Amino acid sequence: MPCDDVEMHCYPHGSAWMSSLLGDPEIEELFSPEKLLGHMLQVEVEVASIQARIGQISNCSARQIAKAAHEFEPDVARLTRSTERDGVVVPELVKQLREKLFGPACSEIHFGLTSQDIIDTTLAMAISELVPLLVQRLSSLLGSLDRLNADCGSKEINGYTRMQLAKPIKFGHRIGMWQALLVNQRKVLENRGKQAARVQLAGPVGTGQELGCSATLIRSELAATLSLNSDDQSWQTNRLALAEFASACCALSSSTGKVGKDLALMAQLGEVGFVGGGSSSSMPHKSNPVGAETMIALGHYAAVLLPGMHNAVMHEQERSGAMWTLEWIIFPQICLIAGKSLSTAERAVSAIRFKR
Amino acid sequence: MPCDDVEMHCYPHGSAWMSSLLGDPEIEELFSPEKLLGHMLQVEVEVASIQARIGQISNCSARQIAKAAHEFEPDVARLTRSTERDGVVVPELVKQLREKLFGPACSEIHFGLTSQDIIDTTLAMAISELVPLLVQRLSSLLGSLDRLNADCGSKEINGYTRMQLAKPIKFGHRIGMWQALLVNQRKVLENRGKQAARVQLAGPVGTGQELGCSATLIRSELAATLSLNSDDQSWQTNRLALAEFASACCALSSSTGKVGKDLALMAQLGEVGFVGGGSSSSMPHKSNPVGAETMIALGHYAAVLLPGMHNAVMHEQERSGAMWTLEWIIFPQICLIAGKSLSTAERAVSAIRFKR
Amino acid sequence: MPCDDVEMHCYPHGSAWMSSLLGDPEIEELFSPEKLLGHMLQVEVEVASIQARIGQISNCSARQIAKAAHEFEPDVARLTRSTERDGVVVPELVKQLREKLFGPACSEIHFGLTSQDIIDTTLAMAISELVPLLVQRLSSLLGSLDRLNADCGSKEINGYTRMQLAKPIKFGHRIGMWQALLVNQRKVLENRGKQAARVQLAGPVGTGQELGCSATLIRSELAATLSLNSDDQSWQTNRLALAEFASACCALSSSTGKVGKDLALMAQLGEVGFVGGGSSSSMPHKSNPVGAETMIALGHYAAVLLPGMHNAVMHEQERSGAMWTLEWIIFPQICLIAGKSLSTAERAVSAIRFKR
Amino acid sequence: MPCDDVEMHCYPHGSAWMSSLLGDPEIEELFSPEKLLGHMLQVEVEVASIQARIGQISNCSARQIAKAAHEFEPDVARLTRSTERDGVVVPELVKQLREKLFGPACSEIHFGLTSQDIIDTTLAMAISELVPLLVQRLSSLLGSLDRLNADCGSKEINGYTRMQLAKPIKFGHRIGMWQALLVNQRKVLENRGKQAARVQLAGPVGTGQELGCSATLIRSELAATLSLNSDDQSWQTNRLALAEFASACCALSSSTGKVGKDLALMAQLGEVGFVGGGSSSSMPHKSNPVGAETMIALGHYAAVLLPGMHNAVMHEQERSGAMWTLEWIIFPQICLIAGKSLSTAERAVSAIRFKR
Repeated sequence: MPCDDVEMHCYPHGSAWMSSLLGDPEIEELFSPEKLLGHMLQVEVEVASIQARIGQISNCSARQIAKAAHEFEPDVARLTRSTERDGVVVPELVKQLREKLFGPACSEIHFGLTSQDIIDTTLAMAISELVPLLVQRLSSLLGSLDRLNADCGSKEINGYTRMQLAKPIKFGHRIGMWQALLVNQRKVLENRGKQAARVQLAGPVGTGQELGCSATLIRSELAATLSLNSDDQSWQTNRLALAEFASACCALSSSTGKVGKDLALMAQLGEVGFVGGGSSSSMPHKSNPVGAETMIALGHYAAVLLPGMHNAVMHEQERSGAMWTLEWIIFPQICLIAGKSLSTAERAVSAIRFKR
Repeated sequence: MPCDDVEMHCYPHGSAWMSSLLGDPEIEELFSPEKLLGHMLQVEVEVASIQARIGQISNCSARQIAKAAHEFEPDVARLTRSTERDGVVVPELVKQLREKLFGPACSEIHFGLTSQDIIDTTLAMAISELVPLLVQRLSSLLGSLDRLNADCGSKEINGYTRMQLAKPIKFGHRIGMWQALLVNQRKVLENRGKQAARVQLAGPVGTGQELGCSATLIRSELAATLSLNSDDQSWQTNRLALAEFASACCALSSSTGKVGKDLALMAQLGEVGFVGGGSSSSMPHKSNPVGAETMIALGHYAAVLLPGMHNAVMHEQERSGAMWTLEWIIFPQICLIAGKSLSTAERAVSAIRFKR
Repeated sequence: MPCDDVEMHCYPHGSAWMSSLLGDPEIEELFSPEKLLGHMLQVEVEVASIQARIGQISNCSARQIAKAAHEFEPDVARLTRSTERDGVVVPELVKQLREKLFGPACSEIHFGLTSQDIIDTTLAMAISELVPLLVQRLSSLLGSLDRLNADCGSKEINGYTRMQLAKPIKFGHRIGMWQALLVNQRKVLENRGKQAARVQLAGPVGTGQELGCSATLIRSELAATLSLNSDDQSWQTNRLALAEFASACCALSSSTGKVGKDLALMAQLGEVGFVGGGSSSSMPHKSNPVGAETMIALGHYAAVLLPGMHNAVMHEQERSGAMWTLEWIIFPQICLIAGKSLSTAERAVSAIRFKR
Repeated sequence: MPCDDVEMHCYPHGSAWMSSLLGDPEIEELFSPEKLLGHMLQVEVEVASIQARIGQISNCSARQIAKAAHEFEPDVARLTRSTERDGVVVPELVKQLREKLFGPACSEIHFGLTSQDIIDTTLAMAISELVPLLVQRLSSLLGSLDRLNADCGSKEINGYTRMQLAKPIKFGHRIGMWQALLVNQRKVLENRGKQAARVQLAGPVGTGQELGCSATLIRSELAATLSLNSDDQSWQTNRLALAEFASACCALSSSTGKVGKDLALMAQLGEVGFVGGGSSSSMPHKSNPVGAETMIALGHYAAVLLPGMHNAVMHEQERSGAMWTLEWIIFPQICLIAGKSLSTAERAVSAIRFKR
C-alpha cells in the first residue's frame, strides 16, 4: 500500500537535518499515512468479518471486503481532494474500496458505521502501539539515571535554592529527585493508554443503533481482535481519555524539561559537561549542552499544546468537526514530543561527564 | 487570628457583584489568608509537638510554641513588607512567632525546617479539604443529570453532527454522554488529591538532613496528624502531583464546558430554555443561557491556565522561586474554576425546561 | 458611591501579604467595582445629556438621570443576585437607577442602549486611564536602566551563549539589549491603547439603529466627553483591539521576564547581588533574587493568559456571553501583570549591586 | 541543490491526504529545507562579497565562496548528524562549504559571523517572502466578502446575542463586522513584517566586534541586497519582533475563526449552505460546513501556539539554545496556520449559498 506518489511536506520537527534534533522516525511512523490507512482498512475488514460471523452481512461480502482491502492501492490524489471537501478521508476511502466490490458487498461494506468509528478506532490502534514504545524509552532513561547515580551519585555538588548557593548536596540527591519525578509515570502511561485505546463503534450519531442489537457484541469482538480496551463505552463526544493521555505525555516532557534545566545550569556552573557536546561555528572552545536545551524546548512546547486537547473536550453535540480536527493537529505532536523528550534525555544523561 | 486590617483587593472572579457569576466563597475560603495562616501555624505547632515527643526539642519549647501560635495575632503590615523582600511569608511569620517565645524555644521553633516545608504542607492541607468539596459538587451535578434524564430522557431531539442535522436521538442519549464524561472523574479527583495532599518536610535543600535520623518518623506522624498522604516522598522539586491535580480540575471544567456548549446550542435551536434565564437591558423577550455561557467561559479559562502548571514542573535545582510563585498564582484559581464550573453546571441543569 | 458592604474575596495576586509580591493597588483600583460602577453611571449620564441636547430625550429626564446617578448608592446585594441571573450587572443597575426616576425619565434612561454599550465603554475608560500609568512605569524602568548603565555599563562580565561561557562582554552590552527590548514598547502601548479605548454604542444587535440617525453624532460627542477614541467603529463583535492591547501587555511582561532570567543567572553566577535581597527562614547567608524570580513568574503567567484573549476574538454572532465573560476574567489580570512586571523590574534593577 | 535523498517525515498538517485540509504547500515551501539552505548560502555569499568590497577579505576568497555556494550539494546525512550534536545546522554547513575552498578562503568564509547570524537572517528572508503572500490572501478574502455583501448583504437574517434570537438584521451588517475585523490587519502585517524581517549580523556574543568597525556598513549593505529592514538593531536576544509577527498571524486565524463560528452556526440554523459542502460516509443528506469548522480549529490552534513565542522572548543571556529551538518549532507553524486560515476562509466565503 504505497503512498510513494504523495508529496511529503516539510515540517520543522521532522524535516531534513532537523529530523535528528526534533524528529522521531519511530513515532512518526505510528502516525504515518501508510500506517493509519492500514489501520482503517483493517477496521473495515475486521468489522465485516465479525458482522458476517453473526449473520449481519454475508460471508461472501466479508471475504470480498478482506480481499479488496488486502489488494488496495489508494488513489491518493482523490483521497486528498475529497478530504478537503469532506473534512475526513473515510467517505472517499470507502468509495474507493467499494469500487473493487460487486453485488451485495457494495452496500454491506461500512455497514452501520460512520467515519468517526473508523478514525477514532484507528487512533486507538496507534495509541496502543505507542504506549509500549514510550514505556520502553522511559525504562531506558531510568536505567541511565541508575547508572549515573552509581557512577557519580556520591559526588558533592552545590545545592541551589532560588538560584542561590544553599548547601552542598550529593549529586545522588538531585538524581533521586529526577528519578522520583519519572518513575511513577510508567503506570500512569499504561493506565491512561488503556483508557484511550478503546474501540469506537457507534454509528452516525453515537447510538450504535445502526449496528442493531449486536452492537455490543461487535464492539467487544473488535476490541479483542485489535487488542483494544473492550469496556464498551463510546467516546464519540467524550474526548477526555485523549486529553488525559496527552496530559500524561506532557508530564513526561515537562519532567525531562526539569532535568534539562538542571543540566543546563550545571553545565553553566561548570559542574558537568557532555561527551560529544555541541560545537559552535565561531567559538571552538565551546561544548554546548544541546540535549539539555532541547529537553527544555520540548518541555515548553508540550505544555503549549496541551490546552488544545482540553478545548477539544468541549466537543459540541454529537460530533464536532472543529474540535476533532484540532485533536488531529495536536495529539500526534504531543505523542511525538513525549517520545523525543525521553530519547533526548536518555542520550543527554548518558553523555554526562562529571567535572568536579 | 483576624486579618481584618488587611485591605482586600478586587479581582474579577470574586469582586462585588461579579462574585455571584465567577466567585466561589467556599473555595476562596480554603485559600484565604486566614485559613492559610492558620495551617502554617498548625504545621509549626504539630512539628514542634512531634519533635518534643521524640526528644529533638524540649517539651517546654513545644508548649510555648503551641501557646504562641494559639494566641497569635499577625502583624500583617510587616508580613506584607517582608513578603515583598523574601518572596514568601514564612521567614517573617516565624520571626513574629519567635518574638512571643523565650529561652531555648527561640531556636527550637522551625527547627530543621525551611519555608517550603511550611508552604507546601499548607497547600496539601488546602487540597485535602478541597477534594471532598469537589466530589460532593460532582455528585450533586450527577444527581441533577439523573433527574433530568428521568424527566426528559425519553424526549426526542435532533442529533447534530458537524453542526448539521443528522438523525433524531433521544435527549437521554446526549445526557448519557455528559454523565459518562463526568462519572469517572470522582475517582480521578480522589486519587490525584491523595497524591497531591502530601506532607512536605525536607529542610533547606530537600534532603531532610536537618531533621536528623528521625526525619521519616516526623513526616509520618505529621501526615497522620494532618490526615495527609504519608508516603514519605519529598515533592520539593517534584511538582507533578500538583500539575496532575490541576489537570483533573481542568478536566472537570472542560467537561462542564462541553455540557455548556450543548445547552447553549440547544437554547439557540429552541430545544430548551432555562427557568430564571438571564434578562436583557434592551430586549425584554430574551432569556439568556447565562449558566451555559459561563460554563463555556470557565472551560476555556481552565484550559488556558493549565500549561502554567506544567511550566512549573520544570523547576530548577533544589527550589525555584519563579516556578513556585507561578504555582501560587495559578493553582488556587484552577481549583476555584473547577468548583465554580460544577456548581454552575448543577444550577443550569436543574433549570432546564424542555421546550419541544 | 460606597461598596463597603461588599465582602471582598481573596485572590492570590492581591490578597493580604501576597499583595506586596503580586498585587498592584494602583491598577486594581482601575478595575475596582467602585471605579467601574462610577464609569457605568457616567456613561448613562453623558449619553442622556447628549441625547437631551439633540432632542432625543427631554432635558428634564437628563437632569433627573444626572441627579440620580450623582446620589446613587447601589444595592450591591441585588446587583450581585441579578448578575448571576443576567450574566452582566447592567440590567439591574439600570433598574435601580430607574427606581429613582419618575415620569418620562423612566423610559428615557438607557434609551437606545444595551448592556454591552455600557460595559465595553466602561472598559475603554479603564484602558485610557491605564495606558499613561504603564507608560510612566516603563519610563521609570528605562531611567533605572540608564542609571545602571552609567554606573556599571563599562564593567566586564562573561557573555554566555547556550548556557556556556562564550566571551567577555561589557555589562553595558547586555543592558543595551534590555533597553532595546523595552524602548519601542511605549509607542506600541500608546497606539494599541488608542485602538482599544474606543466608545462602544451600538444598541442591542450592534447596528445602532435604536439611537436613530444621530447615532454617529452621539458616539462622537460621547468619545469627546470621555476622551476616548472617536473613530466610530463598533467593536461589539470585533474584539481584536482588546486582544492586541493584551498582547502589548504580555510583551512588557515577557520582556521584563527576559531581564529577570538574566538577573537570576547573574546572581547565581555571583556577578550581581541585590540590595535588600530576600532572606531565607533556614539559611541566613542567602540573599535571594526575589524580584528577578517574580519577573520570570509574571512573564510566564502573562503568556499563559494571552491565548484566552485570542479565543475571545472568536466571538459568535452579534454577542457572545461566553467569550465576553472570558475577557472579563483575563483582561484585567493581564493589565495588572504588565504593570506589576514593570514596577518589579524597576525595583530589581535599582537594587542591583555589581559584585565583580 | 537537491535534498532528494532526505526522508521526509509525515506531519498531520501536511501529510498525504491531510495536506488539502491542513497543509499549505506555498507556505511550506518558504520554510522548506531547500529554501532555507539556499538562503543560508546566499547570506554567506553576500557577506563575503561585501567584506571583499570593503577589503575585509580578499576578492579571490569571495569569488571562491560564491562559486562553492553556487555548486554546493549538501551532504544531508552529515548535516543531519551534526545538527543533533550542535543544535543548529550552520557549523557543519560551513564545514562542508569550507571543504570546497582552498587557501585564505578557508579562514575567510563565515568571517566574523556566528551561526545565529545565518539562521536569523535566513528567517528574516522567509518572513519577507511570506508577508506579501499573506497580504494577497487577505485581499482575496476581503474581495470575496465584498462580493458576498453585494450578493446577499441586503437579505434579512436573525441577529443572535448570547446565543438567543435578538432582532432581525441585514446579513450585510454581520458581513461588515467580519470585514472590519480583517481590513486593518493588512497594515499590521506589513508593519510587523518589516520589524521582523531584519538582518541579524552581530557575531558570537551579539556585539558585532568580530566584524570590526565596518559592522554597521556590512549590515546595511546586506540588508539592501536582501531587501530586508536596515535599521541596524541586533535582535539576537530581542525576540519581540518575532513574537509580535506571530501575534499578527494569530490575529488573522482568530479573526477567520470568528467568521467560521458564525458560518457554522448559520449552517446549523439553516440560514446558509455551502456549494460543495462535505459529504458523510453514513448520511447522504448531509452537507457539512467543513471549511467553517476548519477555520475554527485553526483559530484555536494558532491561539494555543502563541504563548510559546512569548516564552521565547524570555531568552537568557547572549543566546538561548532552548528558546531558539522553541521558536523554530512554533514560528513556521503559526505562519502556515495564518495562511491556511485565510485561504480556507476565502474558499468557504465564496461557497456560501444563502438559503432563506
